[in-house]
Amino acid sequence: MNPLPLIRIGVCGLGTVGQGVWKHLTRVRPDLELRLGVKLELTRASVRDLRKRRAVRVPGKKLTTDSLSIATDPNIDIVCELIGGTTVAREVTLAALAAGKIVVSANKALICQHGAEIFAAARRHGGHFLFEASVAGGIPIIKALREGLVANRFPLIYGILNGTCNYILTQMEEQDAPYASVLGEAKQLGYAEADESLDVEGWDTAHKAAVLAFLAHHTWVAPEQMIVEGIDRITPDDFKHAAALGYGIKLLAVIARDFTTDELSVRVHPTLLPESHVVAKVSGVFNAVSVRGDVAGTTLYIGRGAGQDATASAVISDLVDAVALWKNDRRAFITARKALPPERPARGCRLAPAEHIRCRYYLRLTVRDEPGVLAQIATAMAVRQVSIASVIQRAQEPAGVASLVLTTHQSDERAMRATLVRLGRLRCVLERPLLLRIGDFGD
Amino acid sequence: MNPLPLIRIGVCGLGTVGQGVWKHLTRVRPDLELRLGVKLELTRASVRDLRKRRAVRVPGKKLTTDSLSIATDPNIDIVCELIGGTTVAREVTLAALAAGKIVVSANKALICQHGAEIFAAARRHGGHFLFEASVAGGIPIIKALREGLVANRFPLIYGILNGTCNYILTQMEEQDAPYASVLGEAKQLGYAEADESLDVEGWDTAHKAAVLAFLAHHTWVAPEQMIVEGIDRITPDDFKHAAALGYGIKLLAVIARDFTTDELSVRVHPTLLPESHVVAKVSGVFNAVSVRGDVAGTTLYIGRGAGQDATASAVISDLVDAVALWKNDRRAFITARKALPPERPARGCRLAPAEHIRCRYYLRLTVRDEPGVLAQIATAMAVRQVSIASVIQRAQEPAGVASLVLTTHQSDERAMRATLVRLGRLRCVLERPLLLRIGDFGD
Repeated sequence: MNPLPLIRIGVCGLGTVGQGVWKHLTRVRPDLELRLGVKLELTRASVRDLRKRRAVRVPGKKLTTDSLSIATDPNIDIVCELIGGTTVAREVTLAALAAGKIVVSANKALICQHGAEIFAAARRHGGHFLFEASVAGGIPIIKALREGLVANRFPLIYGILNGTCNYILTQMEEQDAPYASVLGEAKQLGYAEADESLDVEGWDTAHKAAVLAFLAHHTWVAPEQMIVEGIDRITPDDFKHAAALGYGIKLLAVIARDFTTDELSVRVHPTLLPESHVVAKVSGVFNAVSVRGDVAGTTLYIGRGAGQDATASAVISDLVDAVALWKNDRRAFITARKALPPERPARGCRLAPAEHIRCRYYLRLTVRDEPGVLAQIATAMAVRQVSIASVIQRAQEPAGVASLVLTTHQSDERAMRATLVRLGRLRCVLERPLLLRIGDFGD
Repeated sequence: MNPLPLIRIGVCGLGTVGQGVWKHLTRVRPDLELRLGVKLELTRASVRDLRKRRAVRVPGKKLTTDSLSIATDPNIDIVCELIGGTTVAREVTLAALAAGKIVVSANKALICQHGAEIFAAARRHGGHFLFEASVAGGIPIIKALREGLVANRFPLIYGILNGTCNYILTQMEEQDAPYASVLGEAKQLGYAEADESLDVEGWDTAHKAAVLAFLAHHTWVAPEQMIVEGIDRITPDDFKHAAALGYGIKLLAVIARDFTTDELSVRVHPTLLPESHVVAKVSGVFNAVSVRGDVAGTTLYIGRGAGQDATASAVISDLVDAVALWKNDRRAFITARKALPPERPARGCRLAPAEHIRCRYYLRLTVRDEPGVLAQIATAMAVRQVSIASVIQRAQEPAGVASLVLTTHQSDERAMRATLVRLGRLRCVLERPLLLRIGDFGD
């Protein structure tokens, strides 16, 4: 009887996620070996500092500071790229793919920025690139979209993709606390990075939205082509106004495609969701992804979006898929097309122009508390046919200043942008207006 | 250049689901062929009546009344068993597997009853048996458990697995309507079968629970070994009492394993869930599955649990997985172990005895409205140390009869069973007590 084939795994980057993968894979290895009929070996790992003490024990002779040497090592079959960033991570990924290896990645920024190049390299050299851990952590959403829902087209995907923002919004709502103090707390608890901008300005969500949009529509949309708005201007009062209207506030990614016109829009913005909506109940660091399929209907996935363990769970799932692509009879992987997205979409789509992106809006204005203000504002909005649905006005500190919260009937992004410019020019408007979208997803 | 390999699919059973598969696969075939690099052919289908008019058009020469001839046809590679039942379906499945084919099935009753035999046959003959459509319709929960969460052990899985029951319970709650009238409506709308017993008595849910328990723990638990209770004795008043206590009522399957003692319990029963719990919000024909993994944490999956389209979505996902197991170089499938559950569990488990299955309980008694009744009941409960947490007493029609709703502190199934017998013997207790479990899942 032939000995079981040995699959050798290299881990590039032994930070939080890398250590989680090492730890959990060490533990579940006997089970997986039995199930897969192979031997698995954690062969090498790369680190920045060889002498740093780590929670997981890795023999010194397995460690290197040279990630690229793992990528090109002929004794490594599968490379986990867990370095982060888009420079070394890109070199390592491309080098490993050029060597025909499978690369498993948790790096949404890398995929978003260099995905086209990476998948082309995987296709050219007969390797694979797997990325379950890049979106929504422990939720197997990549596998659901790519395999479980393969019979479907996706007119609408939306969800909470950033646990830091959802934690901050949940705390602001529950504790009636201002953004800055909740952010400070989140940093102390390790729920927010020292530099929070990538998260709170919506860019991390945008990276993940780009990955989901690619999976669903085989089209790369760069964050710069999306509407991307963050949560940093939301106040506890916005939660109160939203609640009075029957809504909660969530930072959502929304990927919508009209299959009649083949127009696609990808956007990231704080969104008013009806309080009774299941996604509005998803609180704290949890993520949620709602997927509308034209065959399966709407399916919803909820779970931990980040953290060492949840992310390790996703990476190990990709490692097992990688092993299943292994050909027993020779040292090579099967080019199972299923594991790679198609080279070009079966049916192209283009980005929807701003005037085709329609929704209802929530608008908070800080205005002079004097007669005629509402008339001026209503007039400014009427220019672009933005129709007001409801108004709440409240006096505010200091005296002479009022807060004005409007909701609109359906309008579009182009009309709203022009309206915001017009409103900003009014003498009675004292601050840049805050615009939130109202999510009418009809589910 | 070699022509693309041709994969030939036979559909056994052209009822609601079979027609859905035929319809949607015909539509998405060009896309899938492009993505998979194969040609797909819907080669044959079996029906009971050749002359019956159907919503999908199938050429007469592709139809047969002999399902077994499809299973054994050397010109068929993949067989979809969509007949239902456990006699012909079993013969067809075993014959197709004996011929080394892949079988795709939506038949939870078959898997529950003959799963061990079926998987053994698949293993012996190098075929595969795929069953995404057997549980929770359009939700890719089988794939999530088998692949997406492969790094995890599962201390707790629970969920709403029967859309008919969830529809009935939702309508009873929302419309304050009695069970019988809602059931009648559900039958008229086609949401309930003419013979509803399989659904409302919990057996359909039990079949699905057996499939999930097998996937998670590689152990077959027969419905007769489970606690299985249905929804037919629940009244609109139970919803009011539950709401007063802060709960909703859902029919849940619960699969719990203690990894210290390796005891497993699988049970199906109406369950009080805190109103704020996301699963309590899942209404109508939707299903929900909550999966606690020891690495990923809790992930939750919600979607349509049945229906032509949702089920077809799941069957087609299995078909695509089946194609990915196809070896280009010769007409045979790869025995990818990942697609087959292990022959025996890596670590065995045994069924938990009744005294180890613990929860809090809700108990509704119809009693004589006379002095001393509560004392008699409390005394009967104290015999087995069942401790009362709350009591609601309400006079009822006819005069002299009262409804008594108790909740208990944690107790166990054995103590509760003995207590129910004891309560049933009391002269003051006029009807068989209704027992519901309270779901304290800590998530």
